[in-house]
Amino acid sequence: MSLRANHQKLMPGQELARGVGRMLRSLGHSPLMEFSPVKGLRVDVVSVGTKGEIWIVECKSSRADFISDRKWQGYLEWCDRYFWAVDTDFPDDLLPGHTGLIRADSYGAEIVRMPAETRLAAARRNKMTRRIARVSSLRLQAVIDPESLSAGEA
Amino acid sequence: MSLRANHQKLMPGQELARGVGRMLRSLGHSPLMEFSPVKGLRVDVVSVGTKGEIWIVECKSSRADFISDRKWQGYLEWCDRYFWAVDTDFPDDLLPGHTGLIRADSYGAEIVRMPAETRLAAARRNKMTRRIARVSSLRLQAVIDPESLSAGEA
Repeated sequence: MSLRANHQKLMPGQELARGVGRMLRSLGHSPLMEFSPVKGLRVDVVSVGTKGEIWIVECKSSRADFISDRKWQGYLEWCDRYFWAVDTDFPDDLLPGHTGLIRADSYGAEIVRMPAETRLAAARRNKMTRRIARVSSLRLQAVIDPESLSAGEA
Repeated sequence: MSLRANHQKLMPGQELARGVGRMLRSLGHSPLMEFSPVKGLRVDVVSVGTKGEIWIVECKSSRADFISDRKWQGYLEWCDRYFWAVDTDFPDDLLPGHTGLIRADSYGAEIVRMPAETRLAAARRNKMTRRIARVSSLRLQAVIDPESLSAGEA
């Protein structure tokens, strides 16, 4: 851990997401946090693989966190594969068997159960990929040139 | 200008690119700097519009900078519209009339001449969009979690 990364105070779910992001990168995927596929839905992690495959990972820090999520079935239709990321204390039996399972902490993660692939239709994949491209580029610009958020507007 | 942005020491071409990026954002485009559409080519700015349209902007800080660029015609086939971004001292007559022209400085920019659109084929647009999504997400992750560059690898 660098001091720099230690400075950030993350919520439990965000800690898992960080570890998941590191693993996804090591698998050749490009992860993006807190992404909204469509209005009203927001997923913890979305990633794009080298062949354009789209994965979604929801991070659950506790049983209560999982039970209170009433939207997750709506995420399935926005990805080729869907995963839960949980820590070692999580009661895995709660999770539906057809979904993916990732064991994570804030430093890394590993895939415990790979879910079957449900391929997105081309039009939806294109829409998702475009949205991911736009959101990540705009966030990156906001970091590199914070002034861009207000400047340049006519 | 915030102090934060002032800390960065930019090259002349990068200063133009920053202004261009701000303008693109204000037009609803998401800009990404120093992007390689394909091995051996690197463009100063690429952007994705709300409808998925892809623009490329090359920033030229001087006549010599333009004259020494022997690759720019290779950029045309990777975008729907191609622009030059130059400062007020640049001899505009050097630039081909069918290309776009943007007047820029490090704080902002404006489009002087909008080029005709040459629509990308769907397969190439998808490839570009995917590559932009992956590059920008990975760069963003590297900023937010620098440790991700080495961590998580088995």
